[in-house]
Amino acid sequence: MDFADVVAKRRMVRNFSERPVDPEAIERILDYARRGPSAGFTQGQDFIVVTQQELKDAIAELCHEKSYVERGFAPFISGAPVLIIPCTTENAYHRRYQQSDKVREDGSEIDWPVPFWFMDVGCAVMLILLGVVDEGLAAGYAGAMDLDMLRELLNIPAEVTPVGVIPIGHPAPDKRSPSLKRGRRDEKEVVHHEGW
Amino acid sequence: MDFADVVAKRRMVRNFSERPVDPEAIERILDYARRGPSAGFTQGQDFIVVTQQELKDAIAELCHEKSYVERGFAPFISGAPVLIIPCTTENAYHRRYQQSDKVREDGSEIDWPVPFWFMDVGCAVMLILLGVVDEGLAAGYAGAMDLDMLRELLNIPAEVTPVGVIPIGHPAPDKRSPSLKRGRRDEKEVVHHEGW
Repeated sequence: MDFADVVAKRRMVRNFSERPVDPEAIERILDYARRGPSAGFTQGQDFIVVTQQELKDAIAELCHEKSYVERGFAPFISGAPVLIIPCTTENAYHRRYQQSDKVREDGSEIDWPVPFWFMDVGCAVMLILLGVVDEGLAAGYAGAMDLDMLRELLNIPAEVTPVGVIPIGHPAPDKRSPSLKRGRRDEKEVVHHEGW
Repeated sequence: MDFADVVAKRRMVRNFSERPVDPEAIERILDYARRGPSAGFTQGQDFIVVTQQELKDAIAELCHEKSYVERGFAPFISGAPVLIIPCTTENAYHRRYQQSDKVREDGSEIDWPVPFWFMDVGCAVMLILLGVVDEGLAAGYAGAMDLDMLRELLNIPAEVTPVGVIPIGHPAPDKRSPSLKRGRRDEKEVVHHEGW
């Protein structure tokens, strides 16, 4: 699909049909995700694909799916054919920037002005969300509130941060997020020229 | 351009020709950036476009461009026709999640499991980097080490975090990042099924 169309069509979807998702589409989507940039080419991102119903139910509980359903949304996490859990590992960046080509002259690690491990996983998430549209699928996003319980459920190492849950499937009619009533910020407010 | 081609062609470029960049291309790229997702549709992202040479020189200094040049790279920040500085505002998220439709039942703000303000600006950065390719341009990325000096230079409010500098232009032959020698992590290592 044309890039501009992919960007324009992308939106958060919170209901999926029971139609199965082609595993090869998920593979292609994750190939896109692996092509995201990362500071020092650290590539500190991992992705967990979940399709087993018991796991999806448990993950949905950790994302408080019930509170969505109480507000009229579909059970879009437990009911999605596929979940992808994007993860990022801050320590991978520290290990990378302690290597000889990255340390400062005195041998110390740089001071990190911003946590690039969270920005880089954001890049990977964006590639997943766009790739989903390119595959004719739809995706949502849910935050998991208790990361330790999610780690335990999916056997995620302690140093790894699962940053949320991306439910993926063929779209079904859904209730739109009330947040959209806020409207999109105007270009003139968002873009600044030659200074803020 | 086809989405898959855009993703495949994207890479960090560290040299640009003197050929000017169409301002309308930058506008389209920033329209893509504004379409990124954000928690609670907070849209806590702003973008500063810089084309004035004096500002570009000062920004290049804050990004330690000299140390790149000493290692054989082109002056890819001061020499780029356009710089975009993506910014994110954590406080915008706190303000959003203190609104009536987002507070918890006891009126308190949620505990943030991950800093979505950095993930969301990562999404916007990814859209910029892809949009650049779609426009037939190229982009790099540089971290600014002293955020307070960058704030002062560009009149950025104290609560706003400029997360880096994206130089944009028509590509010129460049020295590749030595980090690429690390190679891309294998799909089997990065993707986990039904658990880590």
